[in-house]
Amino acid sequence: MTGKLKTGEFERIARFFAPLSKPVSGAFSLSDDTAVLDLTVGHQLVAASDTLVEGVHFFGDDPARDIALKLLAVNLSDFAAMGAHPKTYLLNIALPDSIDDTWLEAFSAGLAQGQEQYRVTLVGGDSVSTPGPLTLSLTLLGEIGKGRELRRNGAGEGDLIYVSGTIGDAALGLKLRQGELEGLVDEDRDYLLERYRRPTPRLALGQDLTGLARAAIDISDGLVADLMHMCRQSGLAAELAAPAVPLSFAGRAALDRDPALIEAVLTGGDDYELLFAVPEDRADEISALASKLDFALTRIGHFRAGEGVRIIDAMGDEIEFSSPGYRHF
Amino acid sequence: MTGKLKTGEFERIARFFAPLSKPVSGAFSLSDDTAVLDLTVGHQLVAASDTLVEGVHFFGDDPARDIALKLLAVNLSDFAAMGAHPKTYLLNIALPDSIDDTWLEAFSAGLAQGQEQYRVTLVGGDSVSTPGPLTLSLTLLGEIGKGRELRRNGAGEGDLIYVSGTIGDAALGLKLRQGELEGLVDEDRDYLLERYRRPTPRLALGQDLTGLARAAIDISDGLVADLMHMCRQSGLAAELAAPAVPLSFAGRAALDRDPALIEAVLTGGDDYELLFAVPEDRADEISALASKLDFALTRIGHFRAGEGVRIIDAMGDEIEFSSPGYRHF
Repeated sequence: MTGKLKTGEFERIARFFAPLSKPVSGAFSLSDDTAVLDLTVGHQLVAASDTLVEGVHFFGDDPARDIALKLLAVNLSDFAAMGAHPKTYLLNIALPDSIDDTWLEAFSAGLAQGQEQYRVTLVGGDSVSTPGPLTLSLTLLGEIGKGRELRRNGAGEGDLIYVSGTIGDAALGLKLRQGELEGLVDEDRDYLLERYRRPTPRLALGQDLTGLARAAIDISDGLVADLMHMCRQSGLAAELAAPAVPLSFAGRAALDRDPALIEAVLTGGDDYELLFAVPEDRADEISALASKLDFALTRIGHFRAGEGVRIIDAMGDEIEFSSPGYRHF
Repeated sequence: MTGKLKTGEFERIARFFAPLSKPVSGAFSLSDDTAVLDLTVGHQLVAASDTLVEGVHFFGDDPARDIALKLLAVNLSDFAAMGAHPKTYLLNIALPDSIDDTWLEAFSAGLAQGQEQYRVTLVGGDSVSTPGPLTLSLTLLGEIGKGRELRRNGAGEGDLIYVSGTIGDAALGLKLRQGELEGLVDEDRDYLLERYRRPTPRLALGQDLTGLARAAIDISDGLVADLMHMCRQSGLAAELAAPAVPLSFAGRAALDRDPALIEAVLTGGDDYELLFAVPEDRADEISALASKLDFALTRIGHFRAGEGVRIIDAMGDEIEFSSPGYRHF
């Protein structure tokens, strides 16, 4: 019941986490309890923080490397939605006794991989014991040019709605992981599982969208739910064309076998693609931007006056879902 | 297993946490997943983060208001040790089902009280469910003038060692809480319990010490352990005069009944007083500073060449402890 660290925890920090902090002088190799950092002149500090709990947000037997990458990715995705530039992060881990050095080694290797990929470094945090499940919080710090940030509330009437990449892969991957989806070929299975386990934050896209999109959000709660967030914040309604929603090859294969999966695709979370609003007269710029990317930017609907999200099928009829995930919105 | 928030969680944020964010425009009333903040020109960003777990760092039946204040205090204490100015914070809470609105109301009232007292505001974070114990992480953000920060590694040979306030009250309060300490009058009991439950971060003192002290640390792991941290980081040994360690009236009463409690006093954690190193020729400035405070600044030893912490009793003999807390250092 005290804040006292066991020697094991000092050694743990020195062995697994201090090496991740080396490139940043203000991290003091994690030897102090605070980190000191510079911001670029004319920029503002940006901060985001997410918590993942074993058994709630990931499976205890997921590879430790994937858990580390996902923890980074969900926070990087928040930055992507704003168009911000991540720089450093703090990591707070509550570890049950079951976590051993092998796990920590794989976990810190995942962080190192993510650090290299997204050019961020560890600068601080906390490591404690817990009698409960593994609980991981990451606070990402970075910057953005003053007034450049994309928000959820900037969409205008008539703006076009776009998404990046393909939608629903993570929800289908989760169904596979839970043994609820069968009959797919191995390649499609692997693809969907990978998309669930290792989301790709669209950082560069988010940065390219500042000054072009009027509002953006990352799809973490599900396409419909996150579109609803944007509608509420912007004081608008949205019309979403279900047939226009981009599917991966594997996602299409799953839906061909079971068309009812469209509900999971549209309401499932964890895709970490970007959903954004673009004025109609700037659609050409989105096409030009898309031509330089290795993933699609797809128009899926538009904003109009009113409130709520209306989902339209190929016949122009409204689709209604009964799932709890959707009912909330 | 998705990042999907229940409606209950949106309402919870709106009701209990969004009001805490109001004064800061960049917090967007917690409606976005990221916060945007300004730094004062010529200042650097400072960040610290601590995690408290129910059953490890606090008791589940501690008043929610105290838990909130302690969560803020342990992070503010890290800032105090550096001499930094706190501004905003992110809060990550993993809530078991047992947490109800009454608890959340008291918890957010505690945060509101701490916000007013220390002039900080909530700007973001995350709220998730957990099948395990209540787990609270707080990331404090603020600033410090470039190059002004106090670190652990700046102590010099011959520097005097000072502490603020009184030492050991929290360790004795914890013993009371655990039913391991008896025979004290109510007033002393209440005082020690209060010191354990509601630590006071020495923020203003830390800020006054920048440019005067050469190294500082807050006493969270215990006086001896934290002095050892400073020795290691500064490449020095320390001599600590046990009889000089300042005790509260209640602490003295406990030790008078059981002198063996000196071990708990010197090695117990959670006091959150400051321990700092001052060059001998600036001792007068510390006395002058102390005369303006409503708590003591007490000289308890000095640094010398070598390594390790030597604890000396009134006879000049070395004291050795056998407790696990001490053995580690």
